[in-house]
Amino acid sequence: MFIKRLAIIGVGLIGGSFALALKQKQLVGTAVGYGRSEASLKKAVELGVIDEYNLELAEAVSNADVIFLATPLGVMEQMFKDMSVSLKVDAIITDGGSAKQSVVEAARNGLGEHFSYFVPAHPIAGKEKSGVEAADAELYVAHRIILTPVDETNVEAVKTISELWQAVGANVVEMEVEHHDKVLAATSHLPHMLAYALVDSLASLQEREEIFEYAAGGFADFSRIASSNPEMWHDICFSNKQQLLEMLNHFDEHIDKIRHAIMNDNSEDLLAVFERAKTARDNFTKIRNKQLRKN
Amino acid sequence: MFIKRLAIIGVGLIGGSFALALKQKQLVGTAVGYGRSEASLKKAVELGVIDEYNLELAEAVSNADVIFLATPLGVMEQMFKDMSVSLKVDAIITDGGSAKQSVVEAARNGLGEHFSYFVPAHPIAGKEKSGVEAADAELYVAHRIILTPVDETNVEAVKTISELWQAVGANVVEMEVEHHDKVLAATSHLPHMLAYALVDSLASLQEREEIFEYAAGGFADFSRIASSNPEMWHDICFSNKQQLLEMLNHFDEHIDKIRHAIMNDNSEDLLAVFERAKTARDNFTKIRNKQLRKN
Repeated sequence: MFIKRLAIIGVGLIGGSFALALKQKQLVGTAVGYGRSEASLKKAVELGVIDEYNLELAEAVSNADVIFLATPLGVMEQMFKDMSVSLKVDAIITDGGSAKQSVVEAARNGLGEHFSYFVPAHPIAGKEKSGVEAADAELYVAHRIILTPVDETNVEAVKTISELWQAVGANVVEMEVEHHDKVLAATSHLPHMLAYALVDSLASLQEREEIFEYAAGGFADFSRIASSNPEMWHDICFSNKQQLLEMLNHFDEHIDKIRHAIMNDNSEDLLAVFERAKTARDNFTKIRNKQLRKN
Repeated sequence: MFIKRLAIIGVGLIGGSFALALKQKQLVGTAVGYGRSEASLKKAVELGVIDEYNLELAEAVSNADVIFLATPLGVMEQMFKDMSVSLKVDAIITDGGSAKQSVVEAARNGLGEHFSYFVPAHPIAGKEKSGVEAADAELYVAHRIILTPVDETNVEAVKTISELWQAVGANVVEMEVEHHDKVLAATSHLPHMLAYALVDSLASLQEREEIFEYAAGGFADFSRIASSNPEMWHDICFSNKQQLLEMLNHFDEHIDKIRHAIMNDNSEDLLAVFERAKTARDNFTKIRNKQLRKN
């Protein structure tokens, strides 16, 4: 499983933490970084996250055995195209994108014949801070990594990527691409839209200063994800457009149940929604506590 | 400021914590409790939260100098009526309700001539646990208490209630009734509706088990408030109906901006919403950190 040469495309929190963790486990010979900002790449070398960097993508990936694409979703297709000209014949490529259908399409278009060596992956991990300074060898410990291989994906490549993630402490699971995108639309993409819309709607009120001054802990928890990176979420929205729009419509039906129950003084319906939600959320807490204990 | 006899109507987390804190500060002679469940009132005595209890409201409040109404909003009007027959002439009544217009109306209807001794109040504090077992003398330390006196409210009564809250460590502010209800609709009532609707909408999906299994920390934070007490939130919704419905409509406009930007591939509009929200949320974090440091 030793990787002689690992290329990290986009050396931020996600890419940097992966490199750092593998280096600490002594599973990497040389880690090379590629990115847009030379200052940031120099910083990554100083921090020991990567060993060297290259500002040309085709050069950065040539001779690499494993390539981890940790850029915003919107630029991935171009990255696949640019790297395709200089890949070693058995180089394995993987990614960290939050939506998978669009990445699989981008890889299919960009990598051509090399597509079977692409292992689509989504690490369910993050931090409020981003950038290489936030890179953390422990980031993926006990976190889920969802792999979404397709029919053409090379089985050995999936095995290698799976073992690398397990080596850094993650729990690897496999899922169908479409299923992943639906599950993530529900659990992550929709909640981010609600948090952004909530904070934007409050910020547009005349009383906004007081509103934020009197907001308490519940609001702080609820709205935390509205501090997420706008460019990243812009890309996720367009990458998972259909699933997200369907989930938004599905949410609408449920907020409308609440609205109509309140408008029509329908105690029974209102209580029914709240009780169903509380039961589901309490169950989620139990599942989550069990997972956290297990780790 | 010493209260010879304090009556707590509804000896749960909110009422119990107030009694416990005042007793620890030795600001109360006798604390008497009233509630529906004798078992719970006995427990409250055992825990030292109250000194005695009475299952008749009119008897519990007779001779009380200060009466703290910490029941669900839906029963407050009946409580005001029931207590009005036996109040001491200068007894001060206050409450802990999360909506204030409806409580002020209930007090006006229920207390009759005694209405000027009612000081509407809303402690912005809580815990995930409820009930007298969760009562905590420190619950209100460094938390906001919003008083919403009206034109008729006796100025000395407001002063006494304000001093009691300050004595237990709270920060007291005054606000207009309507303004309170709008601010709380925005910062608390609307977010609870969104969390309930989100969890209810996910729980109705066929993939619900996987969805809750793959949900990560962001979702956990976002949906925590969907575990709140359904009966309590039922009452809050109807008590602050107009403001909440207006806030739901206001939210709709903002989630629609997001939806339309995604549907129409409008990058600029989508980024604009996310950036406005992030800026507002980051500012909120700064204000909140400053408040937390100050305390």
